Amino acid sequence: MADNKVYRASTTAPVNIAVVKYWGKRDTKLNLPTNSSISVTLSQADLRTLTTASCSASYSDGDSLTLNGEPSEVSGARTQACFRELRARRTGLEAANSSLPKLSAMPLRIVSENNFPTAAGLASSAAGFAALVQAIANLYELPDSPSELSLIARQGSGSACRSLFGGYVAWRMGDKEDGSDSIADLVAPASHWPNMRALILVASSAKKGVSSTSGMQQTVATSGLFQRRITEIVPANMNTMEDAIKAKDFAKFAEVTMRDSNSFHACCADTYPPIFYMNDTSRAAIRAVESINAKAGKTIAAYTFDAGPNCVIYYLEENKPTVLGAFTQVLNGVSGWKEGSAGVTSSVRLEDGIASALRDGVGRVIMTGVGEGPQKTEEYLVGEDGKAVKF
Amino acid sequence: MADNKVYRASTTAPVNIAVVKYWGKRDTKLNLPTNSSISVTLSQADLRTLTTASCSASYSDGDSLTLNGEPSEVSGARTQACFRELRARRTGLEAANSSLPKLSAMPLRIVSENNFPTAAGLASSAAGFAALVQAIANLYELPDSPSELSLIARQGSGSACRSLFGGYVAWRMGDKEDGSDSIADLVAPASHWPNMRALILVASSAKKGVSSTSGMQQTVATSGLFQRRITEIVPANMNTMEDAIKAKDFAKFAEVTMRDSNSFHACCADTYPPIFYMNDTSRAAIRAVESINAKAGKTIAAYTFDAGPNCVIYYLEENKPTVLGAFTQVLNGVSGWKEGSAGVTSSVRLEDGIASALRDGVGRVIMTGVGEGPQKTEEYLVGEDGKAVKF
Repeated sequence: MADNKVYRASTTAPVNIAVVKYWGKRDTKLNLPTNSSISVTLSQADLRTLTTASCSASYSDGDSLTLNGEPSEVSGARTQACFRELRARRTGLEAANSSLPKLSAMPLRIVSENNFPTAAGLASSAAGFAALVQAIANLYELPDSPSELSLIARQGSGSACRSLFGGYVAWRMGDKEDGSDSIADLVAPASHWPNMRALILVASSAKKGVSSTSGMQQTVATSGLFQRRITEIVPANMNTMEDAIKAKDFAKFAEVTMRDSNSFHACCADTYPPIFYMNDTSRAAIRAVESINAKAGKTIAAYTFDAGPNCVIYYLEENKPTVLGAFTQVLNGVSGWKEGSAGVTSSVRLEDGIASALRDGVGRVIMTGVGEGPQKTEEYLVGEDGKAVKF
Repeated sequence: MADNKVYRASTTAPVNIAVVKYWGKRDTKLNLPTNSSISVTLSQADLRTLTTASCSASYSDGDSLTLNGEPSEVSGARTQACFRELRARRTGLEAANSSLPKLSAMPLRIVSENNFPTAAGLASSAAGFAALVQAIANLYELPDSPSELSLIARQGSGSACRSLFGGYVAWRMGDKEDGSDSIADLVAPASHWPNMRALILVASSAKKGVSSTSGMQQTVATSGLFQRRITEIVPANMNTMEDAIKAKDFAKFAEVTMRDSNSFHACCADTYPPIFYMNDTSRAAIRAVESINAKAGKTIAAYTFDAGPNCVIYYLEENKPTVLGAFTQVLNGVSGWKEGSAGVTSSVRLEDGIASALRDGVGRVIMTGVGEGPQKTEEYLVGEDGKAVKF
């Protein structure tokens, strides 16, 4: 009698927001980057992907993937690369121990849910591929370390490799042609600098115009300034940022974060035709952060923008009244403020032009902090019968 | 009896809009640039400064300057440098010919009027200093060539040196410490490529946030990408642009114009703190030009932005229906369209998002073309009695 059992495992995985940005591939097939990068992993209490990987000989329709309730292609090269790499590792285990069930030969059924809007510049593909890889690794009971799994996740989505860790994470670009040294590693765990906070101003939840996958290669191909970024600017930012994180030097952390975001968006603007991810709301958020720092007389807040108009503002818990209060004053009508934050008062009064641009363009805020890497969970999106659980 | 005669001379001078941008000084006192630049001189029928220079032993209040009806400082180092250089040349003439009146010793009274808004990113300081220098040169009957006068105008405002010529003008950065080789020269006269047209979308006539004088030195001091612009990008753009102008190759002219504008604004965005001259209206104008070129199947329009949100669009007269018609459709309510242009029809329909952003942000258009350098005129802003003429 055939083994028709449904095997399953679930994990959550976090979003990460880079403070030294990944932008540009030197190998598009293997997702090998033109430069190293560093990110902060955000708390999964606020932003996370939940993924259940299951497999069963009874799955007659081959591998499948459901994202946020919608069937999704598994035939893409990136997803296929992840499946292939993970199955190869499972095959190795099965070959070494014949008592193991032959999961590697069974169709996979993957079901995944984000608790935040997809493709709005909130790094959903990073959390998504990290969760997919970790969930299958759990299902297959792979002994691989997070760095080893990061090699696989990287092939799904470059920045996904950084979501295999919590805290402060570096993706080392490596220099080998096969990409075997292009992996993520831990700069410092969340507990090293646990008072790091992030406020996200969601400027738009519309799908962005130019995908980062396409945009970054247009930059590589056409920006005259880009070479300087990858050969000079980023290597220097990597060093300064690692030092800043290790020393918990917020002012240094903030300056590199802001400068690197600016450098990345400058290279987008220098792309031909130019790519603009930031809009007038984004620029108002920059001016707001500058006002907060000017009023404080020191750098207590840092802005950064991924491939979209949303502003992520890093700050430390002890500066919450000043930083958060400046925004609650002008954005008290939008959703997402946590209990108690509306009552925070700040000495900063944003000028009218900044305040009205923020009011016009920010639809929602997300208050979060630094968090842990993927967490195994007993919450399943595939039932014991192999059917996707409906919510 | 003292000579109380009022001596006077008038000139007009044009605005120029760079297609390879000047941004950054290597010597702030002498206004020596970090890179060469090329501009198109716009027609004075639409945009010009009119300046009368006068002098008289009867002027008891010293040197004075009136701009657009308002008294203006003459004590600034830049204005002083122009006065000093011009007086020195006049002194030389007077020393060689004792029959000449001693104008160099008389106080100067300068009155100047623009026919367009000041300091809105419309290169008013360029036209202003070119007119000031040319008017005094006329008053002093200096034999200096436009290139020689460009050396003086450059000390008033860098880009002013290019407004001493009509047509297509290069400012050669030079390499001498005293700046004696940092001069403008003619790439081609207006008559070489007379069908060049410019449409200016005036996105805002508000004074700009960061002056170009201050902004460019912030870029020099803080942008990590800027070195690449001045050492690699601009030298290549200068060569390609000169070739394109000489060959009247519009597609090449347009691509360099757009890429160089993008590179300049990218360096502004990479400045710390970042400088943003373009806004959402400016970006809509870029998308409009891209739509026009896509629809035409070739490059028939080129955008460029100086240190402000206004978009200058270069095109050739033969493409007027397609280029102009795309904008008249969505901006038929704004002022500045010339007779007949409202009836122009284009095959280009701008998409709704672009159209509405343009409608929201463009307050006025200016239709103009390539034009001549400074013109001596008998129109005076100072009467024979030495009094400023009121309008």
